[in-house]
Order: sequence, then C-alpha cells, then structure tokens
Amino acid sequence: ALARPAIAQSMPEIKWRLTSSFPKSLDTIFGAAEVFAKAVSEASDGKFQIQVFSAGEIVPGLQALDAVQNGTVEMCHTAPYYYVGKDPTFAFATAIPFGLNARQQNAWFYHGGGMELLNAFFAKYNAHALPGGNTGCQMGGWFRKEIKTTDDLQGLKMRIGGFAGQVLSKLGAVPQQIAGGDIYPALEKGTIDAAEWVGPYDDEKLGFQKVAKYYYYPGWWEGGAALHFMINKAKWDELPVTYKALFNAAAGIANVDMLAKYDAKNPAALKRLVANGAQLRPFPQPVLDACFEASGELYGETSAKNAEFKKIYDSMMAFRNEEYLWFQVAEYTFDNFMIRARARG
Amino acid sequence: ALARPAIAQSMPEIKWRLTSSFPKSLDTIFGAAEVFAKAVSEASDGKFQIQVFSAGEIVPGLQALDAVQNGTVEMCHTAPYYYVGKDPTFAFATAIPFGLNARQQNAWFYHGGGMELLNAFFAKYNAHALPGGNTGCQMGGWFRKEIKTTDDLQGLKMRIGGFAGQVLSKLGAVPQQIAGGDIYPALEKGTIDAAEWVGPYDDEKLGFQKVAKYYYYPGWWEGGAALHFMINKAKWDELPVTYKALFNAAAGIANVDMLAKYDAKNPAALKRLVANGAQLRPFPQPVLDACFEASGELYGETSAKNAEFKKIYDSMMAFRNEEYLWFQVAEYTFDNFMIRARARG
Repeated sequence: ALARPAIAQSMPEIKWRLTSSFPKSLDTIFGAAEVFAKAVSEASDGKFQIQVFSAGEIVPGLQALDAVQNGTVEMCHTAPYYYVGKDPTFAFATAIPFGLNARQQNAWFYHGGGMELLNAFFAKYNAHALPGGNTGCQMGGWFRKEIKTTDDLQGLKMRIGGFAGQVLSKLGAVPQQIAGGDIYPALEKGTIDAAEWVGPYDDEKLGFQKVAKYYYYPGWWEGGAALHFMINKAKWDELPVTYKALFNAAAGIANVDMLAKYDAKNPAALKRLVANGAQLRPFPQPVLDACFEASGELYGETSAKNAEFKKIYDSMMAFRNEEYLWFQVAEYTFDNFMIRARARG
Repeated sequence: ALARPAIAQSMPEIKWRLTSSFPKSLDTIFGAAEVFAKAVSEASDGKFQIQVFSAGEIVPGLQALDAVQNGTVEMCHTAPYYYVGKDPTFAFATAIPFGLNARQQNAWFYHGGGMELLNAFFAKYNAHALPGGNTGCQMGGWFRKEIKTTDDLQGLKMRIGGFAGQVLSKLGAVPQQIAGGDIYPALEKGTIDAAEWVGPYDDEKLGFQKVAKYYYYPGWWEGGAALHFMINKAKWDELPVTYKALFNAAAGIANVDMLAKYDAKNPAALKRLVANGAQLRPFPQPVLDACFEASGELYGETSAKNAEFKKIYDSMMAFRNEEYLWFQVAEYTFDNFMIRARARG
C-alpha cells in the first residue's frame, strides 16, 4: 500500500503562504513574520517553507483573517482587533482601552487562560492563534491643536478605529477610518484634526510632526498591542506534533524579538522627532478619567449584548486588577526610581 | 566511505544533558529548562533529546557553568551573575544594581548588541549563551527590623550576593552567603538580619514572613534578572544550522513563557503573603539614593581595573539612559494611570 505522507510522516515537506496585515515599511511588525518563517524553515531543514506576503500582495491587510478562514492562505500575521466589526471579542487578542500592558498581555495569554479562551472563540472563524509580537504601549497620536480639557474632544475628527473610536465618540469626537498613507495629507489639509498610528519608530517614517506637532501619550487604547499568527484551523489540526511544537517555539522567538526591537528602536526615534519639532504632551488627567469612564460604559453595553465578549472581558479584567496589584510594587517603583535618577543626570 | 553522521546530517540523533542551577521547587525558573528541552525534542521528532537535571544531581547549582566549560555536560540553564567571582563581567547577562528592567534587558540582548558582547566574553569560558527567561523585577527581601535611614544598614547582616552585596558593604552592611534552604533558620535565630530571595511566588514557599515580617521593594539590584541557556562552545559550533535555529526558537519561547509565568503567579502570592503577616515597605528614597551612588562608585572602580567590564558596562549604561527616556513617556504613564485607577476601585 502507498504511504500517506502528510499523516504518516512526522516532518513532511510543506509549503504554506502567510499573508501579513502590514506593509514591509513597518519593518518591526512585518519582520516578526519573517523571523517566524525563517525559524520554521531553518529548524525543519527547509522541509516546511512559509512564504511571507505583505499586505495587498494576496489580499488587503484588513482581510488577512478572511483569507485564512476561507483557505486562500494557510496562515496570516495580524492584529486581531482589526476584526471587531465581525465581533468585538476579537479585541482581547490585541488590546482594549485601559487593558493590559505588554507583559501582562503575555501573562494572560500563556498563563492566565487567555489563549484557551481566545482559541475557543477563533475556532468559530476556522482559525487557531499563537501570540506573535507586541508593540509595547503605543503613543496617543498627533494633534493639530492641544487637548486641554474634555471639551476639546467635541467635534474632533480623529483617525482612530475600533473600540477607541467608539469611546471617543461617547465624548463627542468623530472617529475617521483612513488608510496609513492617506493620514499625512488629511492632517495637512485639516480634513482631520488628529490621527493615531503606532509609536515613535513607525510614526517618524510618516513625518506627522510637520503637520500636527502635538504628540500625545499614552495610547490608552493599546497599553500593549499584541500580534498573532492565525492559522487555518483544519490546516493546524492536520499538522504533526513535530510541526506544532516548532510553530509554538518559532512564534515564541518572534513574540519576544518584536517587542525587543520596538523597545530598542523607539528611544532614538523619539529624540529625533522632538528635535524635528514634535511637542510631547501627556493627556490631561481629567481627559484620561473621562475616557476611562466611557470605556467602562462601552464594555458594560457590549457585555450585555454579547455573552462571549462578557466571558472573556471578565477574565481579562479580573486578571488586570491582580496584575497591577503586583506591578505597582516592585516593577513600578523600580522604573519610577530609574526615571527620576536619569532626570537628575 | 562511511558517512560522518554528526557532520553530514542536518538532523542527527543527539542526546545531551542540561544541568540547571535551580532546584525543582523553583518551578518557574526550573520549568524554563523543561519548556526548552520539550520544544527541542518535539520539534526534532525526538531526534534531539535533552535530559534536564536539577541543581545537585550532577553538579551543585553554582558550578553549572564550570560543568559546561569542562565538558561534564553539554549545556546548563543558569543565572550568569552567579559567576561574578570569576569575573564581574558575568553580571551583565543577568542584572546589575540599577540596571535594566526585564523588557529593556531583552531589548539590549537581542537588538542592542548585548548578546554579541556577552558571547564574545563567554567564549573565553568555552560557552555560548541564549537568553532563556527572566524573573521580572525582584523584591528587596525580608528584614527583621524596618530600614528607615541609611544608618539602619550599618552592621546589617544580610543574605545577599554579588554586586548588590558589594554595594551594601560600602554602606556598612555585612553581606552573607547562605544557601536557600538555610535562610529561614538563620533569620529565625537572628544569625542574619535580612535576606533576599526572588519575589512573592518563590518567597512564599519558604515562609519568611514568619521570621522577618518587613518585605521591602524594589530589588534594585535586579530590575529584570535574566536567565540563560549556556552551551559548551565546541558543542554549539558543531551543531548543524537546523539545530541552531531550533535552539534559538526554543530558547525564545522559554524566555517569554518564564516571565509570563512569574507575572501570572506573583500577584496572588503577594496577596497571600500580606494576608499571612508580611508588611510591605518601600525602601526610603534616601536609602535608594545612597545605594545608587555606591553602585556608581563600584562600577567606576571595577571599570578602572577591568577593560572588558568597562566595555560592556558602557554599552549597557548608554542603552539604559536611552530606554528610560522612552519608557517614561508611554509605558510609565499608562501604568501610572492604571495603578491609580485600580486604587480608586
């Protein structure tokens, strides 16, 4: 009888396509998919080849999950919160306003029941996810005028999506959906008043400080935005144990390496932005408080309508409150001292 | 002619021994070596088997590097700062007083030139290292009496090693070397006045709050203590590219998973410790300031005597100052808001 290679062999020859939701210009995020694919190829002696495509080469960036779900590609690298239009529950896999920081996100994914909950949800979309990178806490974006009180949010046209846009809507702002390449001219013409992108290293490439000089922080809607490798579930289930283990390990190095790369590249970019005219501004405490309150309202409304959202929300919020109980002790006090020691020179 | 399998094959059958510097009771740290070995075994279809031994099974925990260097075992999982007696330069691979936090440590290792510098140094000890875990910021330890001023450090007998012990010596304390299992009776009898261990999850197992109730923070001598897999360099150099890639990936998942596990387990342990009598205390600002000054002196003295130390110290300090420039903006402000929001309930 003939052997059935894909089932009988532990390391069969496989070629997959991975579509990234990101352009190559976002080299840190896009690079995480390359780190993953290279690790899988090299560690399998070239038997498992994954070709990485940037956004738009196969499908547009925001359709990466759809392409996985319908089998156009075997896997993608994406930010699941792009799909909150399908179900707001997707947001927990990346970030929610006033959610977890990057380390807490990983703690919840790997050891707080997060991935079990998320993968049970993703199964409905024929997908299985592995954490695959984090940007760290993002910036709050670029504003043409200063935000001094919550009144300044009234009528503010801001390029911002997902939950954060809904939260800002509650405070009178008008969220806009604009592709990355169109943000600069919209800010320049005044079609929009503000825009969020990522953080210093990525933002610098687009030159926003020339058209909207106030650079606000923190990006309270993504305290630690996580990326995932999402794999067509039927394809994942078919993989031999060997390749599943390899995928877990390769996603692990991609995960830690991407955050390390952002953390290494953001400081110098921030200095250059400030040297080139960016004016750093913290969101005023009353503005953050109002956004926090509005977020809580939105979560309550969404939980009332969506039992799966509520289930995962409750898990993440219980985890968050415990995490900050601990982080405020050793971590925060250490960072606080180091920041002040640095300022004294 | 006969084939030479170890060279000619891309995935030869190999069995190695890994000695951990840690007992199985420190399940989070010890577990990182198990995560690594399991990933390597499964992803190589069982061809590369690594047997993990706890401290003392082959050699004592503090001799793990020696066992790698002389070929007793092929690799170990250890905290390189255990070997500062050989050369203080080892400390940079784990933590130095007032050094980097866990994320910054990874950023420096992977994208700040850290591993290149460290591996050039480790080559003198016939070893090649891969980052393999982090505890996060540790606690400052358990004290029988409160530390209110730097005067309270005079004559204080504290179980603490390495650079931190030398820094405290400058302030009049008397560092003690005591194995983990002997700390409790020494505190109980008053043979020592204080002892540092790790953080809530590990400290709880030893019950220190019963004999030294003041639990200080932060552990300024290890803002993010990193573990490494250290491999006999000749054995590493012989590995085919396939296995080197697999080791990098497996160490990556071990690295991110270990920190996530600590971050997930510390909060509940902290709550239990406080419920059982631990009194949380921050080190007073003047005490931290004095320790910071003393650390700077020690680094200056060590740099003057040791060119390799100076080279790596200069790299890490330049990196640290840039990192906190950035971390104080988005990350710190986000955490600050979340901690205050939590406190308000």
